[in-house]
This record gives sequence, C-alpha cells and structure tokens, in this order.
Amino acid sequence: MVSLTKRVLFEVIPNPPDETTLTLSSTTNKGHYISVRPFVNAEGKEFPFEWAFGGTSDHIELKKINERANSLNFNFKFDTNVKLNVPETHRGVIKTVFKTWDSGLVEETGSVFPWGTEGTEVKFRELWQPVDPTRLEFVELNNEKDVDQAANSIALSVDNEEYEGLVIVVGRWIQGILFKKGVNTLDGINLFRSQIDEKNSIVSLVKFGADADKFPQEVLLNEGSITTSKGLEWSVIESNL
Amino acid sequence: MVSLTKRVLFEVIPNPPDETTLTLSSTTNKGHYISVRPFVNAEGKEFPFEWAFGGTSDHIELKKINERANSLNFNFKFDTNVKLNVPETHRGVIKTVFKTWDSGLVEETGSVFPWGTEGTEVKFRELWQPVDPTRLEFVELNNEKDVDQAANSIALSVDNEEYEGLVIVVGRWIQGILFKKGVNTLDGINLFRSQIDEKNSIVSLVKFGADADKFPQEVLLNEGSITTSKGLEWSVIESNL
Repeated sequence: MVSLTKRVLFEVIPNPPDETTLTLSSTTNKGHYISVRPFVNAEGKEFPFEWAFGGTSDHIELKKINERANSLNFNFKFDTNVKLNVPETHRGVIKTVFKTWDSGLVEETGSVFPWGTEGTEVKFRELWQPVDPTRLEFVELNNEKDVDQAANSIALSVDNEEYEGLVIVVGRWIQGILFKKGVNTLDGINLFRSQIDEKNSIVSLVKFGADADKFPQEVLLNEGSITTSKGLEWSVIESNL
Repeated sequence: MVSLTKRVLFEVIPNPPDETTLTLSSTTNKGHYISVRPFVNAEGKEFPFEWAFGGTSDHIELKKINERANSLNFNFKFDTNVKLNVPETHRGVIKTVFKTWDSGLVEETGSVFPWGTEGTEVKFRELWQPVDPTRLEFVELNNEKDVDQAANSIALSVDNEEYEGLVIVVGRWIQGILFKKGVNTLDGINLFRSQIDEKNSIVSLVKFGADADKFPQEVLLNEGSITTSKGLEWSVIESNL
C-alpha cells in the first residue's frame, strides 16, 4: 500500500504546535520512503527546508502494536541534518509510534536526543493527513487504507563513487534526495518534489541544489530499468508498472 | 467570504489532542454560522454528536488582532449542550482567538468555564483545515482566503411558536439545526448535514431527530423568499443568488 501524507502540525512537547512547512511523506508499496519539508515562507533562508530524509525499506523497522497503532523505528539512509552535521540534532535510530485516530488522521509521537543518547530526551508529536496520491490537489482520504491500490509505486536509486540518491514516486507525486558524497555543505544536497500531470509531464514544485538537474526526467519505468539524467544513472529498484 | 473548515484536532490543554468526530463549521458571507460535530464511531450513542451550535452574525463578535489573528467571541443562539442542559458545560460567551499558521491551517484557542464563571478555567485548542466548499470531496485550500468568491452563501431561518432553527449553505455544503421550543430532551433536537450534488439534488450525509424532515428540501433560493417543508416555513435571511 502506497502512502502520501501531508503534515498538519509539528509540536515539541510541551511547547504549542505549529506548522511552518508544506511537508509531504511518501512511502512505496515496498516501504521505501522520503519526507521533504520545505518552509512555506522561505524568504531569507539559505536552506529553505526544515529537514529532509529518506531511506529504503531496510532503514525502517515496523511492528504492529494493535489495529490502530504501529511502532516504527527509523534509521535514515539520507538525512540533511546528518549530512550538514547540524549541531543539536539527532543521530541514529528514532523510535516512533503511529496511531490512527477515528477521523483518519495519523498521530506520530516519539523522542529525539539532540545532545546524544545520554542527553535530554525531547518528545515530539506530528500529525499527518493522508491524501490521495493519484490527485494533483490535496484531496483528503478518510483513512490511509482508502488509497488506490493501483497507484504508481516506484523507487529509483543511485549509488556510485560521486553520488547517492533516492527518488520515490507514489501516484502522481515524486520526491527525491541526492547527496554528493564527501561534500557536507549545502553544495552536497539536492532535493526535489514534482508532480506527474494528466499529460504524464513532470511539473516541478520544489527544486534545490546545484545538481538538481540530475534527478530523473522520466520515472514511469519498469523495475530493473535504468534512466540517465545529465550523466547520472538511476536504477529502478521498485516498480508496479 | 464564505468559509468551510474541517476540524483536525480537539485538545483540552494539557491533555493530548485527538479527533473523534467529523466536524465541519460553515460560515456565510454575512457571518451566519453552524458547526455540526458528529462522532465518526457513534455506535451505542443515543446522541451521536459531540456538540452542535450555531447562530446568526449578531451572535458573534469579531475583532482583528493582526494580519494573522482575530479574536472571536461566540454567544450561540443554538447550542445542544444548553438545550439539553448537559451538566458541566459552558454557558454564555466563549472567548477565542483564531490564528492562521504559515501552512494555512487555522488554530483556535480559548477557554470555557464548565463550572460557571467563578469555576475552573478549561483551556482548549482546535485546529481547522479550510476546505473548498464548492467541492464534494474534502479538497484542501492553501489558505481560507483562496475560497471561490462566487460560492453559494445562503442562510435560512425559522422562529415560530413551536420551532426555532437555522440552515447554512456554503458552496455545496448544507448544515442545519432545528430546535423544538420547550422540549429540552433529544426529542427537541434536529441536526443535518447534506451536499448539493452536480445535479443540484440534496444528498443527506447526517440526519438526526424526529423533525429532521422539516429541514428545507430546497435551499438555492433568493433572499426574502420562503420555503415550506412538512408544514414548517423557512425564511431566506441571506442569499447571494
């Protein structure tokens, strides 16, 4: 089951909640995932993102708690905070619980340790609205299980001497992260979010980084195929086409 | 400007938030309003609503705080808690602040006094997602100001010896409250929520009460006109048709 969820709020407990980003998290049928978190008002910000991360299914551990709740332990392969070595941000596994409310929204709670595992625990809450990934607008799903089972579920990956990256396609929504290896500054980070419109053209919504043109120009591909963009070869590691 | 907002969460501070209802609040151009709050899982509930209330624009006082925030003081004409005399619920004016977040969601904070004005203050938070009232699905608006200026904005009212009621139409969404005067039990309460579909037929979504058939069967009417449903005469007190 693919999933596209739009964040409704972020809360560092016990501070009041807020939402300053347009955050979308995409997950494929096989559990590959990316979350891209651009600020709505990015004026004056050199890096116009709160955060971005992603990984393949081997970077996430899911356990069912009950019909309504799962525990998810994330150990991101890609993490802009780690890449940039942002001080006072978490390293390593993040333990979370995802709980579905009657209304269909999904509450995520967990803890991070910005000052190391021996440091102060910071509890957080995020709230997620499942949206229909096959639509270009944000059309709410009553429950994330109501998602179209036939929606595109595609993942592309690159890992060569110079670059490592991941692109996730769910329905009409594409999100991507591309890191230049060994470059731990903004020059090493590329992010994008696009939509596949009714004519199957890719329309860019968010694009960041010197190498952003290396994100794949075509994504509706079969598993095992290769697509090259500005010299960078991407492998399709999952596709339901 | 009409408004249709879907509640995302309800929080009695400092308890954790939750959302067990599908709550919609509708407000017309002139400021007449209704909020209907049915539980998603109403099994076993004699009254399957958390609450419902409404009023005309003279039952609300709005003051601008800044570009992002307004204070709103509600003094409902219709309030199911008051009608049923539910113990430990608020009476009289409720003072609230509505603040628009960067993401377009609207945070409402305020206090109620369930044990009277001298009793304990209970702080609450609600969070609202503006949705497009001209659509049958829940299509999110980036900002409530993005609403279609031509959307239907209609209010119907009844106040005779036996009944008092209000119906609010914004876009394709209709919500209504009808009280039987002097009957302070569930027998005196009627609530409904409907949609006007593409064929201009009214499709019922929520319908409660012995007199629910008295809600108007036609609502796309001019200001000043009268429509009668099962003997009950409704006056159109606002219409932009």
